[in-house]
Amino acid sequence: MDPASTTPGRFALGVEYDGGGFSGWQRLNRAGEPERRGEPTVQAALEQALSFVAGAAVEVVCAGRTDAGVHASCQVVHFDGPRQRDPRGWVLGTTSRLPPAVCVRWCVPVGADFHARFSARARRYRYSILNRPVRPALQRQYLSWERRPLDATAMHQAAQALVGEHDFSAFRTVHCQAPHPRRDLQSISVQRNGDVVQVEVQANAFLHHMVRNIVGSLLMVGRGEKPPEWVGQVLAGRDRTLAGPTAPSAGLVFLGPRYPAQWGLPQEVTL
Amino acid sequence: MDPASTTPGRFALGVEYDGGGFSGWQRLNRAGEPERRGEPTVQAALEQALSFVAGAAVEVVCAGRTDAGVHASCQVVHFDGPRQRDPRGWVLGTTSRLPPAVCVRWCVPVGADFHARFSARARRYRYSILNRPVRPALQRQYLSWERRPLDATAMHQAAQALVGEHDFSAFRTVHCQAPHPRRDLQSISVQRNGDVVQVEVQANAFLHHMVRNIVGSLLMVGRGEKPPEWVGQVLAGRDRTLAGPTAPSAGLVFLGPRYPAQWGLPQEVTL
Repeated sequence: MDPASTTPGRFALGVEYDGGGFSGWQRLNRAGEPERRGEPTVQAALEQALSFVAGAAVEVVCAGRTDAGVHASCQVVHFDGPRQRDPRGWVLGTTSRLPPAVCVRWCVPVGADFHARFSARARRYRYSILNRPVRPALQRQYLSWERRPLDATAMHQAAQALVGEHDFSAFRTVHCQAPHPRRDLQSISVQRNGDVVQVEVQANAFLHHMVRNIVGSLLMVGRGEKPPEWVGQVLAGRDRTLAGPTAPSAGLVFLGPRYPAQWGLPQEVTL
Repeated sequence: MDPASTTPGRFALGVEYDGGGFSGWQRLNRAGEPERRGEPTVQAALEQALSFVAGAAVEVVCAGRTDAGVHASCQVVHFDGPRQRDPRGWVLGTTSRLPPAVCVRWCVPVGADFHARFSARARRYRYSILNRPVRPALQRQYLSWERRPLDATAMHQAAQALVGEHDFSAFRTVHCQAPHPRRDLQSISVQRNGDVVQVEVQANAFLHHMVRNIVGSLLMVGRGEKPPEWVGQVLAGRDRTLAGPTAPSAGLVFLGPRYPAQWGLPQEVTL
């Protein structure tokens, strides 16, 4: 018998969730303790399901915490679990124990030096805004709504001032716990598809509320309340009180982190 | 004062709804009576909101009734209401009285000879299937799920046997109340976009459960359980018991009816 099969191994999981019913990613209680009433978190739901499959307490580390109401198409986590369970068992067994709003898309065994957060080189988000006079009924779980006409071209132009390594204090909530405000924003685009305006952004990492605060400012440009060059001025000012309001959570999806190809993860999360 | 402004006029409305929380389109009680507990219908919700805005009881006639759980991106209804209310007032006032799962997208005054059902020349539906090993979390309200790999090309090929005017008894539920089973199926396509397989179909009209029964049979072809030519054989047999099972409601969206251009309706519902 291969001794490796009974020693713990490290696994990476791709996790999809609808954040609408959750108070965010991060577990609020200690591992193993029951959740506080009315405050379900994605992390606690996932750890409970993994622990059942593992037959022992499992803790996970994620690539990027998401706020209450924010969705994820491919959050990535790592955990250490019994090596004898094959990836298919983790995917199907764990998903069968998860609430309908969460599923495990894939599982890949990784080396002990893989870390979902520290190994990630980039994170991607998409923000979707329904732009029409009437609020959404279909897809309302995944859209924010702006009734005034948006100039997506002006928003795209304004957003380009954010590309590069900058101090993003202007778009950082006061609750942000990051040790410093510098981030490398690698790309940002604003595109219209019919009535939906989508903002896609990739950075090495994000500050707390950074995407939603950027979108809130781009919306002011889109509505014509500010000129496109204003967004660059806000960035340079490093003052949160000068930027636009935080856009609602429902429109935001964490598309996922990206890792160097050496880890052998699925294409959607490989650089 | 223009006497026409106080006499009733006829209006067409474009209505969007998430059918997940409804027991279908059709009101189960008589107009004006309260709904049965636990059986909300889209029609009753819409009539209650319109009646509030009109200040008098309003009944609507729709282009195509949808079943429990089926969505609509642009159902069309007509109703007779006070002419002095402008289209914008109907759209915004009615939507503000509707539950979050329903909204009115547009309102157009039409002649008294417009009829949402009888003036329609075609109806369009889209059915979306997530095709991967794991059930959906995101978008699960709008997808059905097939874990076995689907051959969308074979499904598309099989579906082409349905194009034209045929007796669709093979795809008609026993509860169907239509006077005859002949329908003119104008186009049907099956396409894969990543993990999602979409079936789009247009016909002059549909029998009860016709789209979901067609999809259920196409899924048998997609999974390789039946050859593509089997679907044409099922159609020719006119026997419901030979066709595939009824596909789940969540994947189905009524894209809407289509009318001759003479009615001046928005482009999405104009032929």
